[in-house]
Amino acid sequence: MSVTNADPTSAAEAAKLAALTLATLPVHDRNDALDIIHDELIAAKDDILAANARDMELARVAAAGGSLSQSLVSRLDLARPGKFEDMLKGIRDVRNLEDPVGQVTLRTKLDDGLELERVTCPIGVLLIIFEARPEVIANIASLAVKSGNAAILKGGKESTESFVAISTAISAALEKSKVPNGAIQLVTTRDVIPQLLALDRYIDLVIPRGSNELVRYIKSSTKIPVLGHADGICAAYLAESANADLATRVIVDSKTNYVAACNSLETLLVHKSTLDTVLPKVAAALVAKGVTLKCDPASKEALLKLGGDVASKVEDAQPADYDTEFLALTLAVKTVESVDDAILHIHLHGSHHTDTILTEEKEEAEKFMSAVDSAGVYWNASSRFADGMRYGFGTEVGISTNKIHSRGPVGLEGLMIYKYKLRGTGQISTNFGSGEGQREYKHEKLPL
Amino acid sequence: MSVTNADPTSAAEAAKLAALTLATLPVHDRNDALDIIHDELIAAKDDILAANARDMELARVAAAGGSLSQSLVSRLDLARPGKFEDMLKGIRDVRNLEDPVGQVTLRTKLDDGLELERVTCPIGVLLIIFEARPEVIANIASLAVKSGNAAILKGGKESTESFVAISTAISAALEKSKVPNGAIQLVTTRDVIPQLLALDRYIDLVIPRGSNELVRYIKSSTKIPVLGHADGICAAYLAESANADLATRVIVDSKTNYVAACNSLETLLVHKSTLDTVLPKVAAALVAKGVTLKCDPASKEALLKLGGDVASKVEDAQPADYDTEFLALTLAVKTVESVDDAILHIHLHGSHHTDTILTEEKEEAEKFMSAVDSAGVYWNASSRFADGMRYGFGTEVGISTNKIHSRGPVGLEGLMIYKYKLRGTGQISTNFGSGEGQREYKHEKLPL
Repeated sequence: MSVTNADPTSAAEAAKLAALTLATLPVHDRNDALDIIHDELIAAKDDILAANARDMELARVAAAGGSLSQSLVSRLDLARPGKFEDMLKGIRDVRNLEDPVGQVTLRTKLDDGLELERVTCPIGVLLIIFEARPEVIANIASLAVKSGNAAILKGGKESTESFVAISTAISAALEKSKVPNGAIQLVTTRDVIPQLLALDRYIDLVIPRGSNELVRYIKSSTKIPVLGHADGICAAYLAESANADLATRVIVDSKTNYVAACNSLETLLVHKSTLDTVLPKVAAALVAKGVTLKCDPASKEALLKLGGDVASKVEDAQPADYDTEFLALTLAVKTVESVDDAILHIHLHGSHHTDTILTEEKEEAEKFMSAVDSAGVYWNASSRFADGMRYGFGTEVGISTNKIHSRGPVGLEGLMIYKYKLRGTGQISTNFGSGEGQREYKHEKLPL
Repeated sequence: MSVTNADPTSAAEAAKLAALTLATLPVHDRNDALDIIHDELIAAKDDILAANARDMELARVAAAGGSLSQSLVSRLDLARPGKFEDMLKGIRDVRNLEDPVGQVTLRTKLDDGLELERVTCPIGVLLIIFEARPEVIANIASLAVKSGNAAILKGGKESTESFVAISTAISAALEKSKVPNGAIQLVTTRDVIPQLLALDRYIDLVIPRGSNELVRYIKSSTKIPVLGHADGICAAYLAESANADLATRVIVDSKTNYVAACNSLETLLVHKSTLDTVLPKVAAALVAKGVTLKCDPASKEALLKLGGDVASKVEDAQPADYDTEFLALTLAVKTVESVDDAILHIHLHGSHHTDTILTEEKEEAEKFMSAVDSAGVYWNASSRFADGMRYGFGTEVGISTNKIHSRGPVGLEGLMIYKYKLRGTGQISTNFGSGEGQREYKHEKLPL
């Protein structure tokens, strides 16, 4: 590993070259490297926390001056109880995952002595761009090493000191390991993101971890595939048969458990028959948690009838509200005629992240889950479950709203692709076919 | 299905809307549609061949004038023996494939009454852009219907008449089926490719079928993921222990079986020890087939010693020759010191398509196949086997050199993604965790 101030092209060239060796390294060498990283981070804990304190000092000043958000400051803080230990545990968890490299997923005998095998392998070179959370470096470096991918890491300026301290420790660790120099490139030079995004010749996948603005900028600025999500405009549909208590509990959790999360609820679609039955109860519980409701005329009319606190939190929805990720205690509410209407609304306004139906009708739920084209489609469960840890994947790379490769919470397998190995004994294509003297392919499935 | 001269945006909007219904259509409805397409094409055979004859007439004139290649004219011809029947058989084959939609690939019990399921589903809306081969419309329309994807089809101007005739038949067939209007959009307007490529809001995947120039143009002109390959710069490495007869047979087939194919050989890497042993035999066989050899100094010197026909076909290689897809009876030859050298050359100059090692040493072969980062890595077998039919996948969508999603010959599964369905009974995220009164996730694997 090298902490580099070299130009991005040299870093990417070095990563591509190192990827060659890394891809063939046996799993025990990759695991050993992770053990050494773990121990070096423990040894460097004081240095890292001191560096993080310097970042925090600057960030607090910036936040006081209004140029940095308080939530970013909080994400930056490595000294919060348990944060450093979580980072170490993440490395251990990744180390203990099954080796994702070299898994055979298909075997076919094309003919005698001619066998085809599909085998998982690393994608190649990853570019990871992240903002404030410095522990992400350790997580992602671990995932890259485990999966046999080279990685170029670019941190945000707010976490520079922490980033350099952590990466110095990782660098020292990798020097003692079999992982080749250059497999993990840490770019500390400023303002090089546009240059990195142009290096599609060397970089195979970009993984941004940060604000919507960062992800949206990256997605629109590169030809390299980007794994991630810009928006999380999650909707819940309150169906005619929804159980009032269950729906209230799920909707309140989806909206208020952590408003800044991408899997939080932003739109509530309500069947017209619930306007005077279930919706009032849901609305009262949301308002009690401080939620403002941006309503269409029908839902507004129903809720104003309730008067009191609820009525005071009702506002008129603007069309743009149904395309907005509020990330705040604000919820857009819209009345629909049917489950088909709800599905259509999500099709046109959703972000393919996670959408939920609240209903007691199994058939309606299955229709919703089958038709809604999102990474997560839920029935009577909080949208907040959309998360790699909660799904049981271990450390997560991120959540993807892409339509290809990897979707939803992405674990280690999102960093893998496959290759076809064909082992022959001198076969040539001319000898196969349906002509005279030609052979037919056997295409016999072999056990994995 | 509609044959449309409407603007590309309307076509894409209609496709996205139709995708909603198509995604939930049971397999028997999708299969029925394929049966009807099959029968309508038979009924319309005379009309289609008459239309194709008009395209052919114009193409022959263009070819005579030098503005169209002869190979393009030949690809256009639907009246060649067996071509129309192959198209029909392709539809039948796709119809008989297993339903790719709704396959459960993961099931996890997160807690009692809270079950996670990963289910295959269509990607959404495909944009298929193809040049001369009009039967591709029928193939791709079948694959789209079978996989539950909506598709926008844009043909090349050379095949316009054939394209309209085939699509009129498909359109009539789909009118009689359950597949929604708009699920297959046929755009016949000219010069709309740039507009289509900008519609990343509606289109999820572009599949170009045509020349390298077309694919390269598309890859560099859109933010939508592109499934395919621009270049096929395939290499073979003649190792120290290569068997002369076997190597000669495989290399000659790889280079000369069909020079215009993407899986044909373009670069021959030779171990220095073979210069005066195996290489002369390989070179003589290649030259006998009319191949010109562009050699580095060491291989040139060895081959000039042979004199005669071989010497007369040896030329000096220029650096650019090792990055060139000749698609002709020309082969670049380079001497290397070791298998590592060969791997490095391919890493720096290859196109991640298909590369072959000729060796009798199993360990060396396995190292090559493990380290070379290509969709196909072969040992003692012709690169020409890189093909979906030959791999036993049935009809192929194309060959991909992408590093994510789908690689190598792409069958129906390249048109699929998955979604996570979560069926709950009112669970909320706040109740889970390691705090007091909180529950731990069970993360219990369930049988598929």
